[in-house]
Amino acid sequence: MTNDIIAALALVREQKPLVVNITNFVVMNTTANALLAIGASPIMAHSQQEMTEMMQITGSLVINIGTLDSVWIERMLFAVEQANAYNKPIILDPVGCGASLLRTQTARTIAANANNLIIRGNASEIIALAGETSQTKGVDALDSSDTALTAAHYLATHYQANVVISGEVDYVVSATRVISLKNGHHMMPYITGMGCSLTALTGAFAAVGDSTGLAATAILAIVGEIAAKHSAGPATLQLNILDGLYQLSADQIRQHLRIEVVSSL
Amino acid sequence: MTNDIIAALALVREQKPLVVNITNFVVMNTTANALLAIGASPIMAHSQQEMTEMMQITGSLVINIGTLDSVWIERMLFAVEQANAYNKPIILDPVGCGASLLRTQTARTIAANANNLIIRGNASEIIALAGETSQTKGVDALDSSDTALTAAHYLATHYQANVVISGEVDYVVSATRVISLKNGHHMMPYITGMGCSLTALTGAFAAVGDSTGLAATAILAIVGEIAAKHSAGPATLQLNILDGLYQLSADQIRQHLRIEVVSSL
Amino acid sequence: MTNDIIAALALVREQKPLVVNITNFVVMNTTANALLAIGASPIMAHSQQEMTEMMQITGSLVINIGTLDSVWIERMLFAVEQANAYNKPIILDPVGCGASLLRTQTARTIAANANNLIIRGNASEIIALAGETSQTKGVDALDSSDTALTAAHYLATHYQANVVISGEVDYVVSATRVISLKNGHHMMPYITGMGCSLTALTGAFAAVGDSTGLAATAILAIVGEIAAKHSAGPATLQLNILDGLYQLSADQIRQHLRIEVVSSL
Repeated sequence: MTNDIIAALALVREQKPLVVNITNFVVMNTTANALLAIGASPIMAHSQQEMTEMMQITGSLVINIGTLDSVWIERMLFAVEQANAYNKPIILDPVGCGASLLRTQTARTIAANANNLIIRGNASEIIALAGETSQTKGVDALDSSDTALTAAHYLATHYQANVVISGEVDYVVSATRVISLKNGHHMMPYITGMGCSLTALTGAFAAVGDSTGLAATAILAIVGEIAAKHSAGPATLQLNILDGLYQLSADQIRQHLRIEVVSSL
Repeated sequence: MTNDIIAALALVREQKPLVVNITNFVVMNTTANALLAIGASPIMAHSQQEMTEMMQITGSLVINIGTLDSVWIERMLFAVEQANAYNKPIILDPVGCGASLLRTQTARTIAANANNLIIRGNASEIIALAGETSQTKGVDALDSSDTALTAAHYLATHYQANVVISGEVDYVVSATRVISLKNGHHMMPYITGMGCSLTALTGAFAAVGDSTGLAATAILAIVGEIAAKHSAGPATLQLNILDGLYQLSADQIRQHLRIEVVSSL
Repeated sequence: MTNDIIAALALVREQKPLVVNITNFVVMNTTANALLAIGASPIMAHSQQEMTEMMQITGSLVINIGTLDSVWIERMLFAVEQANAYNKPIILDPVGCGASLLRTQTARTIAANANNLIIRGNASEIIALAGETSQTKGVDALDSSDTALTAAHYLATHYQANVVISGEVDYVVSATRVISLKNGHHMMPYITGMGCSLTALTGAFAAVGDSTGLAATAILAIVGEIAAKHSAGPATLQLNILDGLYQLSADQIRQHLRIEVVSSL
């Protein structure tokens, strides 16, 4: 898998894929910079009047519900339709799923409508998105990461999606496999938009063929871990992560990656 | 008062209060990062469809009118209503008050509707918000900070609010007391969203019980002053301030705080 | 010309001109910080309810179509009308022109309506904005920068505008003159909003009388070139550019400026 990740990085830098983002106001700048730093070409566009053209030329569509309202929901659903029409991968970030009905329902509708779907969220968002069905199944869960894995597995089968759970340990989940990644740093959650950046990067790698979310997850966690070594606080960490995405080498990936196939059906 | 500030900081870091922000597009990222760095938990939400749920779970509501239009004004007024219903403190940042009728009137309407109110602005915004009434009273003012103090005192009594005036000297004003704070650095106004960050931090401290604005004002000014010592320009200063909020110790507060009760009725 | 640029910088720092920006969500923070760092006074305002007042007090109007929809188009066109009424320079950034009909048509409508116009874009945006007419004329173009120059010349005469083409070499084009600037650094396009920052800075200099775009173009490229010398990646570069705008001296301009009048009619 290490070589797949290295190859995917090389492909992004070579192809510079266009990634269309319908994302929240808080992180638009941050995720655009993360995409540029890794070598991709971001565009933030949301008008229905240009979405068909955008879906023709893009490599993927990233949808992030962090600052939601009814006007933007319409735009997101239209964009999903157009992405489906042009067979483009859709990456969904269900920000705040569970904190309001609006977010939970919108995330589920997007997930239900998307044909080629990757979902990226933290444990509580993934659990909320899966909802009662998975929580019922999750009664036997031994701890919260087990609950999240059960939820992710439900989402993977129910929506035929790949799922990434971000956290101290990241999990890359498909219907048939769970991979754990033990990179990253405890200061990363102190930067807003770190999860959203992972979602955006997942879009860049999906555009060059990684439909699992693995390459983006591994790369951001490795870069964060390296960057934290010389960061006194979260703002310096963010700066070093962006520089690190730009500088990341295959050797650094080989040296730092801590990956494990947890289960394989 | 020094011990109150130190205790408030410890409370924010321990309780990690949720702060709901309806703020302007320019500073959403900046203020979310400031809230995370101090230890709070920011969420930017504006839809009326989720505001009731948000007000149930939040510690406070921050409203910032920096990029205003009629749709957002409706949202702000609805959020104020919901914050009142759940007895949550409201922190108002009247950005650009006085520069247009729209801003002045909107800020006044929000102030009039909010039950538990803290207002944070610069001198000209505070003076414009108070308007003719206070300016009449301010005829006797000896200088511009006196005019602002007169205006702040008017706002404090008229709206039963606490008021923070940001500037070279910061003032924390209630109906019965004026406190001056002489920390900070002259380069801070060269970063966009520094005042908005103070407003957001005021929301974090209000959520743990400081309804005066004092703790946030003291802390940001101290952190700015320390950060400026090793900052060659405003971008480095912003970075060092965010790192500094994350790292700030009780000892640093004790060493740097320059506070004075100017008047007490 | 070197002395004109130095004089313009001194004027911006002295007059601190207000620059009203109707810009995209991605770069609002970035361009506000760039304007502050150079010494100007940015305000991001878009509501039609305050635009007349804003155009009375502003030095210029910056319009950037990076995140476009029908509501914002209306606001932009109204603002252009008001800027014309108060005889204020308008700086147009046709972000993504050519990527969708919506962007191309909106940029052309704004350009057609603006009385005192400066256009700032990259080569492909300038070519798309000029459209078939210029491409027909551009049949003889020897390379892509020739095509862009032909397009810029068409825009300059057709809209009675000044035009800046950003790229490895920057061009400042009027109906009667082409100036080339060979400063800058290859890492600058890895930061989102670098072109948008140039557009915003162009607004600051237009507010103090430089209707050509020359001073802003020279200054940002020089600052970027100096900043890159001690920047390991794009995030550090962005930080150093903002600090550099704040620190820039007349001597640095004299030492670094590589400027040439390419043609003069």
